[in-house]
Amino acid sequence: MRNPTIRDVAERAKVSVKTVSRVINREASVLAATQERVLRAISDLNYQPNIAARNLRSARAHAMGLVYDNPNPYYIISAQNGVLSACREAGFGLQIHPCDSASPTLLEELLDLVRHSRLAGLVLAPPMSERPELVNALAAHDIHFVRIISAAADPQDGYPCVYVDDRDAAYDITKHLIQLGHQRIGFIWGGTSHRSSSERYLGYESALKDYGLPLDRKLVIPGDYSFDDGFRGARKLLALRDRPTAIFGSNDEIAAGVLAAAKSSGMEVPFELSIAGFEDSPFSRQSWPALTTANQATEDIARQAALLLLANLQVADAQTRGIKAPKNPGFSPVLVVRGSTAPARITAAAT
Amino acid sequence: MRNPTIRDVAERAKVSVKTVSRVINREASVLAATQERVLRAISDLNYQPNIAARNLRSARAHAMGLVYDNPNPYYIISAQNGVLSACREAGFGLQIHPCDSASPTLLEELLDLVRHSRLAGLVLAPPMSERPELVNALAAHDIHFVRIISAAADPQDGYPCVYVDDRDAAYDITKHLIQLGHQRIGFIWGGTSHRSSSERYLGYESALKDYGLPLDRKLVIPGDYSFDDGFRGARKLLALRDRPTAIFGSNDEIAAGVLAAAKSSGMEVPFELSIAGFEDSPFSRQSWPALTTANQATEDIARQAALLLLANLQVADAQTRGIKAPKNPGFSPVLVVRGSTAPARITAAAT
Repeated sequence: MRNPTIRDVAERAKVSVKTVSRVINREASVLAATQERVLRAISDLNYQPNIAARNLRSARAHAMGLVYDNPNPYYIISAQNGVLSACREAGFGLQIHPCDSASPTLLEELLDLVRHSRLAGLVLAPPMSERPELVNALAAHDIHFVRIISAAADPQDGYPCVYVDDRDAAYDITKHLIQLGHQRIGFIWGGTSHRSSSERYLGYESALKDYGLPLDRKLVIPGDYSFDDGFRGARKLLALRDRPTAIFGSNDEIAAGVLAAAKSSGMEVPFELSIAGFEDSPFSRQSWPALTTANQATEDIARQAALLLLANLQVADAQTRGIKAPKNPGFSPVLVVRGSTAPARITAAAT
Repeated sequence: MRNPTIRDVAERAKVSVKTVSRVINREASVLAATQERVLRAISDLNYQPNIAARNLRSARAHAMGLVYDNPNPYYIISAQNGVLSACREAGFGLQIHPCDSASPTLLEELLDLVRHSRLAGLVLAPPMSERPELVNALAAHDIHFVRIISAAADPQDGYPCVYVDDRDAAYDITKHLIQLGHQRIGFIWGGTSHRSSSERYLGYESALKDYGLPLDRKLVIPGDYSFDDGFRGARKLLALRDRPTAIFGSNDEIAAGVLAAAKSSGMEVPFELSIAGFEDSPFSRQSWPALTTANQATEDIARQAALLLLANLQVADAQTRGIKAPKNPGFSPVLVVRGSTAPARITAAAT
């Protein structure tokens, strides 16, 4: 089907294209009668003046892209919904672009995406958002983007971002476990390509330090943000002679894997093992017992990233030196205590 | 950033636009030297001839839309990945459009989506795909679409679709439970706006009939495709004096809710209660015990729907009466037996 153009409106209203654009842009210089004729033509043709008004200002199309590489469906859906809510308010469409963050041709892939699909800009989720060379290259190609990154503070590197303080929240989760009397607390990493993984580890590490607990390397297991890594990691930890009485999985998928591993070896959670995750995904509420976790407002974080992108696009459109780009918003996930964590049984440590 | 146009190529190669389009379309009538000059200009400008070639043939842009209304993140991600894999092969982008299937303005919403975002067509997931008035209206507006629907056979209603035989798979799940010795089998419905719900119920009903078991209305509970409805429905069923020894949830989210309800009331699954779901979502593998379910190849189903849409777009582009549209592919989900179903204990029924 053909999209009505401003020319169709001009033809139908028997005026010039310039006049139609004047009406669309609410310029005073149009006679009331003419204006009414144009508006009638616009509604007859179901022509979209807002979109058109933007078209007149900018050659860019009205869709943005969301770029992510994450094994966690709950995270992806929340991020999509957040970006979508901002897109809809602005009359933008959303193209999704899951990708392989390790791909050597990722830059070309993203440039093609923006060109072919005529995207106004990109929202970059971790880990792509945390690769300086990629970010610099996109900027060098005049691609508009906003990053979602893990950081304790605004990096102030000159690029727009929404930053999430994973370290602080991981500190709180570890503190919660320590205050329940746990002294041997296992930690399972997320993917090292995600800065959130090291940030969450640093939170775990500094909580142990602050509360005078030794850091036992045997209790720290590498992994990715996946169920299987949680399961595998937990098997290793639970096989230790002096096994942990609590395990902190870097996200809820990992914690779900820990939960399954514990149950599959006949352990009672939380009485024989406390488990904490991160992200407050639906799984963390739906598992039995429900998981202690950190509420990371992924949907709102993604929405803020999209709103920031839209704001920056307007600044770019306006091309006025005067308007300053809005500042980068920050988020701090909050501890959520549920049934998967309980006071340590000293006996459990002995088993 | 500005997208290089065919005019830029013509200018740089010092030839006419028509000549560039001849080269792009591999027409013989171009001198080798000229052709080489054009191809060099194309690569210098990183101009995209394939996309352009389609642009010359058709005014439509190179993105399609995926329209869905489903509470299950695993289903959504699989559907997106399936459509994306087909889109990428064709150089298409994918815009996602979760919507409220009950919205009275859904038709206008979808027409706006296609117009604003210049989409080539839509892949419609249930339940939108199963509303004849919506489908007819889209067709009347010359919108290209392919439906994913639940049906035991090709409806042959003249519109393209991929159909999934939910009834047959639900019959197999019910049969599996009956063969384990279960005589009182609870059933929790999915959303009634989804035809798959009634199809799955019909499979349950006809299996009971074929195996000579009475249909007890008290064991059939309404619901939506969500965890909470599974939890609520299971509470009702387990509170019955003569409670079921097995519960068939219409999808894995419902079954997950049943599992949580059973555990929260201290029951051992599968020994005191067998549970089956539908869809083979990651949750069904990650829960403890893992869920017996039906493998519904959602990703492949969605991919086939997108490929069918692309094929029909080509037929439409070619505008030749000769080419027939490809036939509608069908899928049959397959029973997957896991730890959540076991032989019935007669004692359990008595408790």
